[in-house]
Amino acid sequence: MEGSLTPERAVVGFIGLGVMGGSMARNLHRAGYKLHVYNRSRDKAEELVRLGAVWHDSPGDLAPHANVIITMVGFPQDVAEVYLGEDGLLARAKPGTLLIDMTTSSPNLAQIIYREAKKRSLRALDAPVSGGDVGAREGRLSIMVGGEAADFEAALPVFQAMGTNIVYHGGAGAGQNAKMCNQIAIASNMMGVCEAIAYARKAGLDPEKVLQSIGSGAAGSWSLNNLGPRIVRGDFEPGFYVKHFIKDMKIALETANEIGLQAHGLKLASELYEKLAEMGEGNRGTQALYKLYE
Amino acid sequence: MEGSLTPERAVVGFIGLGVMGGSMARNLHRAGYKLHVYNRSRDKAEELVRLGAVWHDSPGDLAPHANVIITMVGFPQDVAEVYLGEDGLLARAKPGTLLIDMTTSSPNLAQIIYREAKKRSLRALDAPVSGGDVGAREGRLSIMVGGEAADFEAALPVFQAMGTNIVYHGGAGAGQNAKMCNQIAIASNMMGVCEAIAYARKAGLDPEKVLQSIGSGAAGSWSLNNLGPRIVRGDFEPGFYVKHFIKDMKIALETANEIGLQAHGLKLASELYEKLAEMGEGNRGTQALYKLYE
Repeated sequence: MEGSLTPERAVVGFIGLGVMGGSMARNLHRAGYKLHVYNRSRDKAEELVRLGAVWHDSPGDLAPHANVIITMVGFPQDVAEVYLGEDGLLARAKPGTLLIDMTTSSPNLAQIIYREAKKRSLRALDAPVSGGDVGAREGRLSIMVGGEAADFEAALPVFQAMGTNIVYHGGAGAGQNAKMCNQIAIASNMMGVCEAIAYARKAGLDPEKVLQSIGSGAAGSWSLNNLGPRIVRGDFEPGFYVKHFIKDMKIALETANEIGLQAHGLKLASELYEKLAEMGEGNRGTQALYKLYE
Repeated sequence: MEGSLTPERAVVGFIGLGVMGGSMARNLHRAGYKLHVYNRSRDKAEELVRLGAVWHDSPGDLAPHANVIITMVGFPQDVAEVYLGEDGLLARAKPGTLLIDMTTSSPNLAQIIYREAKKRSLRALDAPVSGGDVGAREGRLSIMVGGEAADFEAALPVFQAMGTNIVYHGGAGAGQNAKMCNQIAIASNMMGVCEAIAYARKAGLDPEKVLQSIGSGAAGSWSLNNLGPRIVRGDFEPGFYVKHFIKDMKIALETANEIGLQAHGLKLASELYEKLAEMGEGNRGTQALYKLYE
């Protein structure tokens, strides 16, 4: 369609080349997009630079070289800095550039960026993802998009290079809100998964047999069937970090508060994860919540 | 195998012909088992009687006519009465009879029944199920079994007539404990599912699109994908009753307390469901928890 940001019409800037961002950028390269890249530590960009991506020393330096700029950074404060800082994207991008924040971040911040972008004749989408490192690597992410529908349509070829389940959820911030729903569903479920396995063990059952009994029925879930076996064998390596999950739950709780939702389960899960982080487990995977029940 | 309770070697007594029990008894009939039946209200037995099942006026009257007796009643107090009452199964069954309680009930009660049965040269298994009305109808239940391994082996053909995922979990009470793990995993997850959908709605998202975005990833679960759409369309009809779930959570909390598990999520879910029942929603399906968040 017209204005569609295909590899022929788009030069993509990519900021944030961590586990997720690195894989996503590689998939954009594979799809034929010309890339300009920036990352806080340069070493993570080396492979992409070898493949032809152009390195820049700051987001501001990168900004004028692309007409689509994707950000995949850590925390909302990083997003704010990259977009709204003195040498940030809003100050330096060319008019008409489409800015896409794929970090899981605050819906309010997404709305601020959208409005500020508009004032400068820039376009902005919020498009957080789920699917983890494997989904990022295999280009099978779920992408939840908020912003203007026309910008979503234009960005579709870019999203399709990274994901398979791409859904437009409404105006600015709607993508972040959809991602919050994802995190809310996971938060309480993780308590259930950990408590079920801890109960099994303390009751003298074989937790593997219990997973076999309950994994395919009404108690079944991605977490039970994927993280459950890791918990049983004492593997608390991060797929998704405790510290990042805490950040997400904080955003969700703040927004829940604003929209008048008493999210009892989320609140409890958030408190338990804070406790876990205080125990020094912030760099573990979310399944480490089990340690609180041991 | 020797002693295996095939249709040639077993006459099955079935007590409790509700939505679950009725379907399970029909599947036993279909597999070729001769049936003796009892139910609190006789009308639910009519179809089975037409198919050839023999009606009895009490559990005690039924007991001497079968060498396998299955119970599928409502609450632990019903189980206690049917087994331990003056005119109950333990008092009236013939020596060697295998008693199988498939009600979701207390692990402690299962152990009491097992011990009392043994004193009277009777055998007892606890074998609660999951899979709901559909699983019961289609003979695809998950069956979680506790008791002596030899009795489990003998009962396999009987279980295979009703279920597909049949797992032996250990001594008396182990089946009930495995089922508690199932309910514990569901309890917290239901909070997450309801909170995610309530958040979506209050944030102005289309909850159906949110389910589309999050249902196949890390937030996915049987409850999200099966009960979520019902919640979205305001369908709170019971698949599984709130009042029965409350009973199960009470048992799980009692046992958790005995085995030294602080089941934070389960406790919170149990409190929320109690509140829901106080609002007069005890006969709704478990997805009605959503009403607390509206």
